[in-house]
Amino acid sequence: MSPAGRRARDLGIVIGGLPTGPNNAITDVPGVRVGHCTLIEGEGRLVPGTGPVRTGVTIIEPRSRIWETPIVAGFHRLNGNGELTGTHWIRESGQLTTPIGLTNSHSVGTVRDAIAAQVHRERGEGAYWCLPVVGETYDGLLNDINGFHVEPAHVAAAFAALATGPVAQGGVGGGTGMICHEFKGGIGSSSRQVALGDRSYTVGVLVQANHGRRARLRVNGAPVGERIGSDVIPSAHDEAARAAGSGSIIVIIGTDAPLLPHQCDRLAQRATLGIGRTGGTGETLSGDLLLAFSTGNDLPPAAGVVDQPYDELTLHAVPQSAQDLLCDAVIDATEEAILDAMLCATTMTGRDGITAHALDPDLLRAALTR
Amino acid sequence: MSPAGRRARDLGIVIGGLPTGPNNAITDVPGVRVGHCTLIEGEGRLVPGTGPVRTGVTIIEPRSRIWETPIVAGFHRLNGNGELTGTHWIRESGQLTTPIGLTNSHSVGTVRDAIAAQVHRERGEGAYWCLPVVGETYDGLLNDINGFHVEPAHVAAAFAALATGPVAQGGVGGGTGMICHEFKGGIGSSSRQVALGDRSYTVGVLVQANHGRRARLRVNGAPVGERIGSDVIPSAHDEAARAAGSGSIIVIIGTDAPLLPHQCDRLAQRATLGIGRTGGTGETLSGDLLLAFSTGNDLPPAAGVVDQPYDELTLHAVPQSAQDLLCDAVIDATEEAILDAMLCATTMTGRDGITAHALDPDLLRAALTR
Amino acid sequence: MSPAGRRARDLGIVIGGLPTGPNNAITDVPGVRVGHCTLIEGEGRLVPGTGPVRTGVTIIEPRSRIWETPIVAGFHRLNGNGELTGTHWIRESGQLTTPIGLTNSHSVGTVRDAIAAQVHRERGEGAYWCLPVVGETYDGLLNDINGFHVEPAHVAAAFAALATGPVAQGGVGGGTGMICHEFKGGIGSSSRQVALGDRSYTVGVLVQANHGRRARLRVNGAPVGERIGSDVIPSAHDEAARAAGSGSIIVIIGTDAPLLPHQCDRLAQRATLGIGRTGGTGETLSGDLLLAFSTGNDLPPAAGVVDQPYDELTLHAVPQSAQDLLCDAVIDATEEAILDAMLCATTMTGRDGITAHALDPDLLRAALTR
Amino acid sequence: MSPAGRRARDLGIVIGGLPTGPNNAITDVPGVRVGHCTLIEGEGRLVPGTGPVRTGVTIIEPRSRIWETPIVAGFHRLNGNGELTGTHWIRESGQLTTPIGLTNSHSVGTVRDAIAAQVHRERGEGAYWCLPVVGETYDGLLNDINGFHVEPAHVAAAFAALATGPVAQGGVGGGTGMICHEFKGGIGSSSRQVALGDRSYTVGVLVQANHGRRARLRVNGAPVGERIGSDVIPSAHDEAARAAGSGSIIVIIGTDAPLLPHQCDRLAQRATLGIGRTGGTGETLSGDLLLAFSTGNDLPPAAGVVDQPYDELTLHAVPQSAQDLLCDAVIDATEEAILDAMLCATTMTGRDGITAHALDPDLLRAALTR
Repeated sequence: MSPAGRRARDLGIVIGGLPTGPNNAITDVPGVRVGHCTLIEGEGRLVPGTGPVRTGVTIIEPRSRIWETPIVAGFHRLNGNGELTGTHWIRESGQLTTPIGLTNSHSVGTVRDAIAAQVHRERGEGAYWCLPVVGETYDGLLNDINGFHVEPAHVAAAFAALATGPVAQGGVGGGTGMICHEFKGGIGSSSRQVALGDRSYTVGVLVQANHGRRARLRVNGAPVGERIGSDVIPSAHDEAARAAGSGSIIVIIGTDAPLLPHQCDRLAQRATLGIGRTGGTGETLSGDLLLAFSTGNDLPPAAGVVDQPYDELTLHAVPQSAQDLLCDAVIDATEEAILDAMLCATTMTGRDGITAHALDPDLLRAALTR
Repeated sequence: MSPAGRRARDLGIVIGGLPTGPNNAITDVPGVRVGHCTLIEGEGRLVPGTGPVRTGVTIIEPRSRIWETPIVAGFHRLNGNGELTGTHWIRESGQLTTPIGLTNSHSVGTVRDAIAAQVHRERGEGAYWCLPVVGETYDGLLNDINGFHVEPAHVAAAFAALATGPVAQGGVGGGTGMICHEFKGGIGSSSRQVALGDRSYTVGVLVQANHGRRARLRVNGAPVGERIGSDVIPSAHDEAARAAGSGSIIVIIGTDAPLLPHQCDRLAQRATLGIGRTGGTGETLSGDLLLAFSTGNDLPPAAGVVDQPYDELTLHAVPQSAQDLLCDAVIDATEEAILDAMLCATTMTGRDGITAHALDPDLLRAALTR
Repeated sequence: MSPAGRRARDLGIVIGGLPTGPNNAITDVPGVRVGHCTLIEGEGRLVPGTGPVRTGVTIIEPRSRIWETPIVAGFHRLNGNGELTGTHWIRESGQLTTPIGLTNSHSVGTVRDAIAAQVHRERGEGAYWCLPVVGETYDGLLNDINGFHVEPAHVAAAFAALATGPVAQGGVGGGTGMICHEFKGGIGSSSRQVALGDRSYTVGVLVQANHGRRARLRVNGAPVGERIGSDVIPSAHDEAARAAGSGSIIVIIGTDAPLLPHQCDRLAQRATLGIGRTGGTGETLSGDLLLAFSTGNDLPPAAGVVDQPYDELTLHAVPQSAQDLLCDAVIDATEEAILDAMLCATTMTGRDGITAHALDPDLLRAALTR
Repeated sequence: MSPAGRRARDLGIVIGGLPTGPNNAITDVPGVRVGHCTLIEGEGRLVPGTGPVRTGVTIIEPRSRIWETPIVAGFHRLNGNGELTGTHWIRESGQLTTPIGLTNSHSVGTVRDAIAAQVHRERGEGAYWCLPVVGETYDGLLNDINGFHVEPAHVAAAFAALATGPVAQGGVGGGTGMICHEFKGGIGSSSRQVALGDRSYTVGVLVQANHGRRARLRVNGAPVGERIGSDVIPSAHDEAARAAGSGSIIVIIGTDAPLLPHQCDRLAQRATLGIGRTGGTGETLSGDLLLAFSTGNDLPPAAGVVDQPYDELTLHAVPQSAQDLLCDAVIDATEEAILDAMLCATTMTGRDGITAHALDPDLLRAALTR
């Protein structure tokens, strides 16, 4: 699903000057795990409720049992034609208190409540509530999205698949049916290592990339979208008679550098610059929503019970002067994650025979050196 | 469920100087319909998945087939410990494009996807997406909230119940298991008529009220919460050993006055002043989220198809000088809606025998005149 | 200027249940100093550039040499028809790095640059910049506002007057020519002491109150504005043929409780509920801007020089469960500060003979007990 | 000051596919005028209050007598280490009601109050207030910024210089002492023409560019900053021992396409993508603030007088599907305006002999084709 040797680095494409982590993925941030559940079934004409099915679920767990030890988080909106649940509490409290789910636009609810149920199962009894964070992009060009094929069991499967190490990319999990800059897209991930003083921190990015117009695509500044037009590799949007640029990108940024909530907001906005450098513009019909978390502080859970003891929190934070390097890391890793989402995807034919063609590595290499 | 003669006006309590609409409810705004589905089953000890069940769904439809003719909308957050989906698109586009659902905290997902399915059924085939707006408050003091008892059929039932005219209030629909200022709470609604020039507009408010501490409750300025302590009418929070003030309030504001999106944002924030006047403080564990819509402009749907013709929009808007009267209407109607949510509710015993006692009208009358 | 025995507490009016600090003023927060410079000159017909002059400057210094040890801060906007400079940096960095100035609407610039000059003088040479925080309300009903009578020397005088201890209230400093709920207004201040665990913290509020309509004024819930109409005490707005409610209120909130930036944002929004409880509605022509700071964390200055050493910050913060008490303190102290701004002011006649009448304490007492 | 033949287009550099307006400047938007006042005096060692002086003022007037017919406007913050006054009212009302000033960081106040005075002079008597919009960037590497050399007369001179037609660029007006990507920077402007249906609209951008690190500078995607290092053209930041990237960029976007306020917010955020494409990252010590206005709607002034007649507003707006083209225009014109700010500037030596070197056109051409 994420064929060997197809990542940008395998092609010699290097974005920016910072080194990657060992997996070049969000899982390089210690404690972060990713799990996918991919649903591919059926072919041919769309029969709502039947298929074809080209969708899935991805779970990102910043740390285990996060509801017991919430972490700091922040949020930014480049364009709001999309959903990312749970952001009101992130904005208010500066905290992330649940795992993160990614899926298709019409299955956000199923995944959200399934995460609440999962938390309930792991947490055991007790009066409490849970505000899961679930993002989406639209896979209706390939998938029977109104068939609502994602079920709680698929969410459980993604949880069961949670793992550290390399992250499967391209048309997997929540990214299964996604299209990016009119090439096949999906999940992409990248990381950077940042030395601050005598410490080393990791910034990891994971995208579910379903956004962008072909004509504006740039790789490392080169206008490859102009050079690989739809005459060379066809556009799924053309086939579906849909406006290019309708789509979305969800960006999840994680780091072990200790940050305060407003510093996470800053990192979240910086990912928009990575989107912009690859040619995204926050198109009107695109939901470009960005979440950043830091595992560098352990927060106490909200309780809501009477007679809680009073304990003041102690938090650590990177000083102002050092944040620019983290921002550089976010921008560069976002650019590379988007590129890997395309490069690791393989051509997929979905409902009504619509085909999303993969970005061919050889054509890309040629376009870069032209 | 909303016994006759128990509204604030029936007790002679009048909030502010503006007249109400004929129903004194959000349905006084032309075209707005409300439907409830109430789930009450079982008694006794909590058995997750079995019950007792004290929950439900409320649907607010600002206009029929709203996805074909979206309306202007805005949003404000007083405190974010809660969920209201769909707000990223409201903020970005200034539009409301779906019906609004209200339910318990852990059924938001079910209701959200069920609204997407409902829109799909009514709209018919076609490649599009839908970003439903669903809010929640927590009914876990009375309800088996982790039993996930709300199902798509209940959402369909609430849609089927959509009606103009009087709105059932108190422990109905999404408000079934709610508790407000430590009295039984739930759904409340009120409206005001505003004369602007030679025109008359209506402002309607509907709340799902599950917030507030007893001690700070004021009615029309009088400190009735101090006067009707938990020694007089017991507090469900005390019984459940939960911190008072943990809860939430969702406020939906509608008007037929023509507004632009930023003007709707202003109305949404004004509802916080109504919450504040009755004693709410946007408590840390409360999700106090506020949505305002105006049916005074008809917007074209977002399409995402190629070759759309170019048609400039024409919108109308109330001038600046006239907005203060609309703001007064929002503040006063919010205060009255919260009061009616309590007054129309009847005492309810839920899981583990926890009882939320109603605010007794006679005691309230006495407290007001002390 | 702030006559003895005229504060709300002197009249037996007590807002909320928390105790005040020794001065019942923002200066109860350790280290906070306030200084006024009041300009009153001339009488009779308005001659722009000549007078009459009814204006001034107030400086609030959260700590001495704050640019060397910035503090945490946050911001909220109830209504934006006003100016409070420096908020972009507060939002971005979560820091307050300069003293705060308050003045009339058209002298914000003079005060802003004068604060930059003052910081420069105290700080000595070196390449740096400064983003002063200056708020304003409009005194043009009484003052020759387009005469630009505030000069840098007046800002220096307000700095020279900085003091701890009691704060002069009413028509002094930046509040000299202000009008509140159609009574004479100006500067008001109040404080609350909050016990958290075995610690005691102070919340202080200072307002420059120039907002509000008479009809909506409530004191401790009682509709005194209805009871003391303009037939009893005339309205300056009526005299000037200006719409009541045009005006503004700036609220400055300080605390020594350790807070993070997003927690300061929460306190800032809570002050709107105090405004709302006294009858303010964030009127369209009002600039209701609210700033909160916490002296409980010492931050390093931004440097902008090369080769800064890397030092991670350590911050402390009040836990979630304890913030509600701080919010209560903000709401109650804001309500009392607004009331004291009116009660401590004396009747003032300004340009063109327009008179802003003071709220008479005896009439208020009578109105409260009616 | 803006030497002939030095704009990007003169070098054959074309950003994006949309055509420019006749001046390739913000003045291509009908009715928009720009005026500069440039202050250059003295040489040698910094003597605060004496010099050397390298600063100025730029005024952008979106339309004449804008306070009588306000226009729609919006705002975005990429990074907040800077000042842009007047944004609270822009956010609240969606309106721009004053001309816009640009100057150095410590003269914002002088320019702000001088604009209020200018409006007062042009408007004549009457009780009203004015909330001028003034942005700044820091010129203290070259200029005696703490000498406060900008005076009201310089603001008046910039007003007197207001003109349509070509805009002087580089080290002029507010941009006089600015440094961009460690080259000499300053004012830059560019425009694009957008065909929507059978109409043609113009998008104009003006930047005061004082931001960016050399190493990240890209021109049309090419890493020219890496190729023209400080060994080739020295960096003023190195000379001054200041961290590169400390600085700021103010972006003013204008269009005659009819927009609503939230649509202007969208355009404002899109300019950040132009900054990002040229290598800006919203550095921590940078004030990257963006304002967008549309002259396509005529709004009534706010009055604040009693007995205003009630007149509903009628506004026009570009439909959603057409906004992407406007966004493309903003991104591309911002990139080109930044580039022109550098290309049109000439090498300048300022206080203490610090020199900001111009980006050499021949070296740039060579770097682009390498």
